[in-house]
Amino acid sequence: MPVRALWYRSGVLHLIDQRKLPAREVDRPLRHVRDVAEAIRTMVVRGAPAIGVAAAYGMVLAHREGTYTPERAARLLRATRPTAHDLFVGVETVRAAWANGEDPLAAADRYRKATVEECHRIGVVGAPLLTRARRVLTHCNAGALATVEWGTALAPIRVARQRGARLFVWVDETRPLLQGSRLTAWELARERIPHAVIVDNAAGPLMRTGQVDAVIVGADRIARNGDFANKIGTYEKAVVAHENGIPFYVAAPWSTFDPRTTSGRTIPVEERAEREVLEMAGRRVAPEASRARNPAFDVTPAKYVTAFVTPDGVVRPSELANVLARRSRGPGAR
Amino acid sequence: MPVRALWYRSGVLHLIDQRKLPAREVDRPLRHVRDVAEAIRTMVVRGAPAIGVAAAYGMVLAHREGTYTPERAARLLRATRPTAHDLFVGVETVRAAWANGEDPLAAADRYRKATVEECHRIGVVGAPLLTRARRVLTHCNAGALATVEWGTALAPIRVARQRGARLFVWVDETRPLLQGSRLTAWELARERIPHAVIVDNAAGPLMRTGQVDAVIVGADRIARNGDFANKIGTYEKAVVAHENGIPFYVAAPWSTFDPRTTSGRTIPVEERAEREVLEMAGRRVAPEASRARNPAFDVTPAKYVTAFVTPDGVVRPSELANVLARRSRGPGAR
Repeated sequence: MPVRALWYRSGVLHLIDQRKLPAREVDRPLRHVRDVAEAIRTMVVRGAPAIGVAAAYGMVLAHREGTYTPERAARLLRATRPTAHDLFVGVETVRAAWANGEDPLAAADRYRKATVEECHRIGVVGAPLLTRARRVLTHCNAGALATVEWGTALAPIRVARQRGARLFVWVDETRPLLQGSRLTAWELARERIPHAVIVDNAAGPLMRTGQVDAVIVGADRIARNGDFANKIGTYEKAVVAHENGIPFYVAAPWSTFDPRTTSGRTIPVEERAEREVLEMAGRRVAPEASRARNPAFDVTPAKYVTAFVTPDGVVRPSELANVLARRSRGPGAR
Repeated sequence: MPVRALWYRSGVLHLIDQRKLPAREVDRPLRHVRDVAEAIRTMVVRGAPAIGVAAAYGMVLAHREGTYTPERAARLLRATRPTAHDLFVGVETVRAAWANGEDPLAAADRYRKATVEECHRIGVVGAPLLTRARRVLTHCNAGALATVEWGTALAPIRVARQRGARLFVWVDETRPLLQGSRLTAWELARERIPHAVIVDNAAGPLMRTGQVDAVIVGADRIARNGDFANKIGTYEKAVVAHENGIPFYVAAPWSTFDPRTTSGRTIPVEERAEREVLEMAGRRVAPEASRARNPAFDVTPAKYVTAFVTPDGVVRPSELANVLARRSRGPGAR
């Protein structure tokens, strides 16, 4: 069975509770839009494309509840997390259908299918980039859990493996919430893809000493100029990859691209609770008097990106604005 | 009371058990050289200069035990950890005195005093570098706990504060063993020096967005050409500081400089247990099938170092080989 982050059946949205992995696989059945909002806020579900799909079904639940206007439901869901662009696309897709008198469930289903299908195409587009890369490094979780199925960064790895490539994956543990060691390693272990977990600090020296052939990550929001937000730590990996001449790829479905944000400067970065840094497994690790800063994302300038791996091809940062402009005029715009 | 990592009294070496901080301040009294070796191996005491002093007193205990030759005691202590150069200097200083029929305790006391005094001079030399830096970032713990008293990276911060500078310190938590959040934050909190703990991943974006005026770290071994080993993560911080035009200082006593190692290429880097990465507070955080790599140190090339802060002045990497050659001929060689 491939990993699936969520599924909808008979008025119930089911989420795998990603906070419990890898120890336990817990299914959270949700019946109310406010529960979906809370699940997004508390990271039961995380990963930009998966958040977008979960929010799309949140709109469906709101419609079934009968007490929401499309606008009020959309506001509730949009307020959960500020950085991932997919959240806004997923909500808007279903809000528009609902407001136009169309079936919200059909719109959410179409949105989910498009996300899954785009992730598969990202795999097909990206696999050739990795066929000569024996050792690939990834940060955070940009796998099936983050995207419903296939993943973004992990999709090319999966497709390359299906085609017989022998890949080894370096998994940044990704502090503070360990999406690398908890989620990416769990996906890779399930599929017996060889990998090793490292502390985030170890990515740099592995790159410097020739043990990394390519870096591939997902994204939470990609601005028109190619600057992009992703899990905190992505910027350091991109700078060090650049410094060492290692290709750095960013894989994302179209819902992650935000043509109205001109540069990374205006991408909002969520600041999360200090205790995510100051506690570990519920135990304080820093002195009581110490404070913390905890930005959940960072912004990487486009100059460090070798290429974006999109569902419709490899796009250099310098070509991105034109590609997005063409898409907004074309029939395939999402 | 200033922080002190260790003290010797009446045949007993006392170590603060650094694995228990910041929750508890536990004094480990040691009477046998093999216990000192074990304490170094298991990181009851850590930090290159502190390891050197602990090992010097380990030689004293071996001498008192009466069953060791100087060479056998030195071998036992040298085998504990491979990277910190101070370990070898501390052991060799007392071994030579003992083998020459001198009093090992007097030699160890001299070595400890020289370390403390050099750290204070590092503070005096380094403080002017930080007077215009309002926000200083440091990695790992290069404080009193790592050096007996004062610290290396923290010494200039302490001296600048005594002189009235208003400094704020960004503390990298320093995975996997959290010497930043557990030890550096503990030292700063005790002295009410304003600081915030961050995940290591957050250092880069803080530098990029102009929130860091200088970076200062300690070292475990500095090669003749200025390449140096320090806690894993130092290399990434150095590259990102360089990329953003932020000064990057390395503070160390003379025992950390290794004139016989010509470049970073031949500095041995310790690989520690996988469980330091795969477990957190004793609980597995990665799947059972996942493996880890856990290098404890990385090597940063000299080109990323703005200057070394030594007890006898600020030294540019390009000047280092000459300075070390002069010292080896002079009376102050240690």
